[in-house]
Amino acid sequence: MITVLAGGVGAARFLSGLVQVRPQPEITAIVNTGDDVVMHGLRISPDLDTVMYTLAGAINPETGWGLVGETWQAMGALDRYADVRPLASAAGATWFRLGDKDLATHMYRTHRMAEGASLSEVTAEITGAWGLGLRLVPMTDDQVETRFTVDGEGELGFQEYFVARRHDVAVAAVRFAGAESARPAPGVLDALRSADTIVIAPSNPLISIGPILAVPGIRDELIARRDRVVAVSPIVAGAALKGPADRLMADLGFESSVVGVARIYADVASALVVDVADSGLVDAVQGVGMRCVVAETVMSTPAIAAALAETAITSAG
Amino acid sequence: MITVLAGGVGAARFLSGLVQVRPQPEITAIVNTGDDVVMHGLRISPDLDTVMYTLAGAINPETGWGLVGETWQAMGALDRYADVRPLASAAGATWFRLGDKDLATHMYRTHRMAEGASLSEVTAEITGAWGLGLRLVPMTDDQVETRFTVDGEGELGFQEYFVARRHDVAVAAVRFAGAESARPAPGVLDALRSADTIVIAPSNPLISIGPILAVPGIRDELIARRDRVVAVSPIVAGAALKGPADRLMADLGFESSVVGVARIYADVASALVVDVADSGLVDAVQGVGMRCVVAETVMSTPAIAAALAETAITSAG
Repeated sequence: MITVLAGGVGAARFLSGLVQVRPQPEITAIVNTGDDVVMHGLRISPDLDTVMYTLAGAINPETGWGLVGETWQAMGALDRYADVRPLASAAGATWFRLGDKDLATHMYRTHRMAEGASLSEVTAEITGAWGLGLRLVPMTDDQVETRFTVDGEGELGFQEYFVARRHDVAVAAVRFAGAESARPAPGVLDALRSADTIVIAPSNPLISIGPILAVPGIRDELIARRDRVVAVSPIVAGAALKGPADRLMADLGFESSVVGVARIYADVASALVVDVADSGLVDAVQGVGMRCVVAETVMSTPAIAAALAETAITSAG
Repeated sequence: MITVLAGGVGAARFLSGLVQVRPQPEITAIVNTGDDVVMHGLRISPDLDTVMYTLAGAINPETGWGLVGETWQAMGALDRYADVRPLASAAGATWFRLGDKDLATHMYRTHRMAEGASLSEVTAEITGAWGLGLRLVPMTDDQVETRFTVDGEGELGFQEYFVARRHDVAVAAVRFAGAESARPAPGVLDALRSADTIVIAPSNPLISIGPILAVPGIRDELIARRDRVVAVSPIVAGAALKGPADRLMADLGFESSVVGVARIYADVASALVVDVADSGLVDAVQGVGMRCVVAETVMSTPAIAAALAETAITSAG
């Protein structure tokens, strides 16, 4: 059994490699929900959907999120309302792009949760509809919101920071509102306890994996099983392949390098897989107290993703 | 000033005639919200939207509801989830067709109401976005739900009765849940008091106009101004042009004819406009205590709608 801690695009690609080398029923992904947001009354779980659409072979390959062959009629029609809304309102805002087909996922989720279903129940239904054989589990069924303190502006929600502001702001602090009282979703702790190997996917350590580790009980379980936990660095040659991990690490006082990643994960993982571009930093990573494994980590083809997954799961212990 | 009590398709056509013969700023439509429903988490106001889309020239002329040139990507995608939902759930149901562009209206409304805006505030914003010059006002900002008692089945909501069951069931009773504690929306009573003429549009008297009259204060205002109130019969030669008015009237003990319509409206309106096909019933209508005006009421062309509107507003007093 393999359990993967997952954010969005990077984790989705890693999992698409993993399912090539291991049977899906042996895999559980525990997915970040700190980015979840209600927009236009609809419950949106970006990381769950990115992982699901990717594994279903339905992801838009150009963006890395959303559905392939998507249409944008609803967003186009929403533009009509942008000019009439009160200034203080985000109603009618279209910076968070929701394709017409993608809307169906949020409509289903919203309907079921309004009936009282938990996010993990609905996630099982939705992934079943897409024919996934692996298990996707939200980190928690409780509300946890990743929030960013931006100098001179106060706090932004995740999507305001990430999409509306294109993560092009200096972040003074990150917090996971609600995490202190959140409980791991059903199956999360069991999946960590029963896994032969736990992989921390190449996701943003601070705002994709960070929220998962902030749910009480999860970090402790990883610490207890540290010898079976392998992380894959999302930082290659000092930069993030996608997203703001590099800038955010620097803003928050971490070195934007595999060594910085190692310092974040040293207490919960015993090994770090780094890219060949960072082979010169193997000693530095080991100096932080983690074994360091060098591999090709830029998953530009399915074969590379599969090889990386194989490397990761054989690097534990 | 002219105030119109309005349901859906019939009222929308009547109003599209009225705006040809009177300036839009002189017109207020008080619209039924008893059909309003939350589907997939989205707030849907079918009659408000039918009237709005019609007056904006954007209605689908084939259905009489929804937008012209609509696409159905979200509904198609929702089908995927229909098979995985628990049996007791309506999540993923697609019998209530929501086009992709139409979804934007519901998304905007839902977002604004989640922020605390009232339905009448949001309606003003939405109709402004569509460039309407007349005023559309929901009958109430409070929740009123038209509900149907069906023999052997218990109660159905409006859309279950009307769309899912295609109003092909025997109705034992209709009620307007919440009406007793609802208040007229801001502007409703003023629009009735200040109108030179009040027109009851050719909508279903029991389930389109009935809910409006059930909001405390509205019926009393009509009774007080009865000499200025004109109704247009939605029944022509004993049948409804569209929808279940004829069957429903019979089910609930009313004669399915202009005489039956006259009996429903006699206390709130002083005149009834009936179709030329019913000219033989003029005496019978007058026997119920209403003046009876004969006109062409089947609005198959814009010119006929305009002439009918002119007839209606000149028939009062």
